[in-house]
Amino acid sequence: MTTESTGPSGNDDGFHVFDTTLRDGAQREGINLTVADKLSIARYLDEFGVGFIEGGWPGANPRDTEFFARAQQEIDFQHAQLVAFGSTRRPGAKASEDPQVKALVESGAPVVTLVAKSHDRHVELALRTTLDENLAMIRDTVSYLREQGRRVFVDCEHFFDGYRANPEYAKSVVRAAAEAGADVVVLCDTNGGMLPAQIQAVVTTVLADTGARLGIHAQDDTGCAVANTLAAVDAGATHVQCTANGYGERVGNANLFPVVAALELKYDQRVLPPGALAEMTRISHAIAEVVNLVPSTHQPYVGVSAFAHKAGLHASAIKVDPDLYQHIAPELVGNSMRMLVSDMAGRASIELKGKELGVDLGGDRDLVARVVGRVKERELKGYTYEAADASFELLLREEAEGKPRVYFRTESWRAIVEDRPDGTHANEATVKIWAKGERIVATAEGNGPVNALDRAMRVGLERIYPQLAKFQLVDYKVRILEGKHGTDSTTRVLVTTSDGTGEWSTVGVAENVIAASWQALEDAYTYGLLRAGAEPAE
Amino acid sequence: MTTESTGPSGNDDGFHVFDTTLRDGAQREGINLTVADKLSIARYLDEFGVGFIEGGWPGANPRDTEFFARAQQEIDFQHAQLVAFGSTRRPGAKASEDPQVKALVESGAPVVTLVAKSHDRHVELALRTTLDENLAMIRDTVSYLREQGRRVFVDCEHFFDGYRANPEYAKSVVRAAAEAGADVVVLCDTNGGMLPAQIQAVVTTVLADTGARLGIHAQDDTGCAVANTLAAVDAGATHVQCTANGYGERVGNANLFPVVAALELKYDQRVLPPGALAEMTRISHAIAEVVNLVPSTHQPYVGVSAFAHKAGLHASAIKVDPDLYQHIAPELVGNSMRMLVSDMAGRASIELKGKELGVDLGGDRDLVARVVGRVKERELKGYTYEAADASFELLLREEAEGKPRVYFRTESWRAIVEDRPDGTHANEATVKIWAKGERIVATAEGNGPVNALDRAMRVGLERIYPQLAKFQLVDYKVRILEGKHGTDSTTRVLVTTSDGTGEWSTVGVAENVIAASWQALEDAYTYGLLRAGAEPAE
Repeated sequence: MTTESTGPSGNDDGFHVFDTTLRDGAQREGINLTVADKLSIARYLDEFGVGFIEGGWPGANPRDTEFFARAQQEIDFQHAQLVAFGSTRRPGAKASEDPQVKALVESGAPVVTLVAKSHDRHVELALRTTLDENLAMIRDTVSYLREQGRRVFVDCEHFFDGYRANPEYAKSVVRAAAEAGADVVVLCDTNGGMLPAQIQAVVTTVLADTGARLGIHAQDDTGCAVANTLAAVDAGATHVQCTANGYGERVGNANLFPVVAALELKYDQRVLPPGALAEMTRISHAIAEVVNLVPSTHQPYVGVSAFAHKAGLHASAIKVDPDLYQHIAPELVGNSMRMLVSDMAGRASIELKGKELGVDLGGDRDLVARVVGRVKERELKGYTYEAADASFELLLREEAEGKPRVYFRTESWRAIVEDRPDGTHANEATVKIWAKGERIVATAEGNGPVNALDRAMRVGLERIYPQLAKFQLVDYKVRILEGKHGTDSTTRVLVTTSDGTGEWSTVGVAENVIAASWQALEDAYTYGLLRAGAEPAE
Repeated sequence: MTTESTGPSGNDDGFHVFDTTLRDGAQREGINLTVADKLSIARYLDEFGVGFIEGGWPGANPRDTEFFARAQQEIDFQHAQLVAFGSTRRPGAKASEDPQVKALVESGAPVVTLVAKSHDRHVELALRTTLDENLAMIRDTVSYLREQGRRVFVDCEHFFDGYRANPEYAKSVVRAAAEAGADVVVLCDTNGGMLPAQIQAVVTTVLADTGARLGIHAQDDTGCAVANTLAAVDAGATHVQCTANGYGERVGNANLFPVVAALELKYDQRVLPPGALAEMTRISHAIAEVVNLVPSTHQPYVGVSAFAHKAGLHASAIKVDPDLYQHIAPELVGNSMRMLVSDMAGRASIELKGKELGVDLGGDRDLVARVVGRVKERELKGYTYEAADASFELLLREEAEGKPRVYFRTESWRAIVEDRPDGTHANEATVKIWAKGERIVATAEGNGPVNALDRAMRVGLERIYPQLAKFQLVDYKVRILEGKHGTDSTTRVLVTTSDGTGEWSTVGVAENVIAASWQALEDAYTYGLLRAGAEPAE
């Protein structure tokens, strides 16, 4: 097991943490990323401090091309370098004239990962070319990209299966890539069928025989992707390819979070910027929200159950010394210990959260207990405050100040959606609101029922609160809770609103999507008016 | 890596597959088993062919006591032996007089697993006795149970942490257990913090130094429980403790299914009765149903995504030879390959998908091109077919047959959601539909606008298509696309419908959630009627 320290930053070239959530992770069934999603995930990954972010295959589809253009304009990367993924040139063509290779250069990414065949059968059956031409394709494409000033990594697809079938050819692929100027040759267990002992043996031999700098790309088909990645590191690999939350095709890829946690906490090898590991739980959950998948409750290190204790046998001993019953202090990865039955919102975190929001809960144990109680009660109903800071702050202030901030009161509302015989839709909403002693009835149309409600609200309130004119809904997420009851499930809506200088998020939960949206909108307007310093109506 | 064959049955004493789903697995957050649940799971595990089923802790709670009584009466075990779990005697008492030990004997189970402390700090801080008395407790309890005719296994709790702190004491615990007559001494990574290389080194040394028969019990806190279990087997352990689907405290236990699959398929070691491995997917899902958890879609070997392919790059090669892109034939574990249709996929995957759905697109290149074109065009609008097989099949059939299957036509619909001054909501929908030449106007209420539309549709159509009575919405998912445009974004809805014998998924995309839901419902009804063999209206 390696114990050398390679410096404080993920950018350190001694060891590469290479993330491929945006390319290989996006192959997971059920994930379909927009450009906005990809930009958002890239920001989280850079914040976490990975050294490389593989963004996609520029030229292969318009979305990936757009991502590379916008990422370089819009993101001020602090730690990561952007990587374009592509393939070696076509058989019998020149690398410099291959449009696919050109698109890699045009993406502007400083690093390119080239996928290359290393299994002889794949060269012959899938690529339909000769073993020699495949080597020439690797050499030419790597050399060409190096001439264009790019750093090049080569992913040897199906390396371990290929090595089993024809070890000499597999090694000649590694040599061809390294000799042509690839900085890292990545051995890929593309079908994911390997076990750690096999990975370790092959990496050891290939390293000894080729002298190339090696990386590892593991898939989780045997449930061993994390262990396979670490086995390669044990054998001398210094570049690990992973995805956030293990997203990826079939079962998934090696999960970035337990791999990085093992390196930092078990190998004592610094691979992230200082302080980043303690953000891991939050970043894992945030990325899950962006891809719209429920965060896995049982994910190692970051799952809400990862440090939850149920066994009576353990519970009494934990009181004596928590370290007896946990392999690491959960705070190291931004998680926390929970005793079941209990909940996520402990006193300490509520106090911390209050401090973060500028609400001092200092010595007031009663107040903290009341807030914890309300959070528990509301989370039981499906609310989540982790992603709805503004709703949480309203709740906190209500308890601290003894009454809610009220800028308006809703009497009733109605939304109508109509599908007309010509196929167009009419969406109309009416709201009846009281504000500063006045009863306001307003009606508006929109391109959906929530949009119509939002507009009716503005029409009605803007005269009284001109600050509203600046508010804009910038994100809207719906999640159906308890997925096994069809359309009568509980619905949770998260809304993000902007006033041009900042953004805030609010939550609503109800038996239907419109009612849940309305709740989130009410909180969004209330918080926005509070933020704008508007005078409360009551 | 071991390659010896130990005979055809899980009962073979050369290698033990020991399941602890009913004891340690039940510690998982969210699992709460009744006696009936436990009996049902025990039947599945016996059918699967594990050698030992640890049923619980008799005497510790009435449920476990009842389980042991009923399991021995009601289940005709074909492969497994029932195991009672308990603790060594209390400090300073006689094993024969300890009521907890007595309950183990009275359970009637032929095998007993005793948990024993092997970490010196735990002996002192949690057990509050001396290191010597702990050894005496182990010797006495094992001897007493052997005198009572029971086979005894000893679980050394916290063995690996204990070994790190005090290797000599940890080994003395193993020796005490083996010398007193325990058949297997199980080294437990109770806190789950170990990595495979560490497990392998410790098991190797302990085996060499004590000569005891060793077992392994791994927890998944580092994401390496399967690999840790296999590392122990590599080092000479011949008894693996696992749980179905990896259920267990915190992150969970070593997952029975990938461990057994690795032993059978990768080690070529028979640990199950003939034919049992091919039942693995069904048994995994059945146990998930009993414990009332959604089966993990991404579980190795048995998840519905475990052999699902999305990338167009791969799909063309899969047509040539599926073994190029899967590490085992999915049929070996009772699973099957699936092609996902997405904008990353090309012609090859569409053809394969057609074959899977029983629609021959064989030589018709024009037809395939039309289908690819329509899929691309619709995916650009936000549709996704990878999770909506039924909508894809309708599209495919429409292109293959030259016209869509039409059972009804929508003239118009309207949904009204009203928030009343008393805080309750009224949801009402009206649909105007044509079916078999008849114009139907139907109105219904629901607990949300989509539920109201669904009910109105049924009210209107059930008289004409009585098959509809069996349809039930079982899952409903909403995704807002292009998350950066607030409430005027595009909305995608995925609906899963069941008719009691099967499930199908459909998709709708529109500028608002109600219109998108309506589209998905239309497809759901159309596909369900097609599936039921109903006569089209036109």
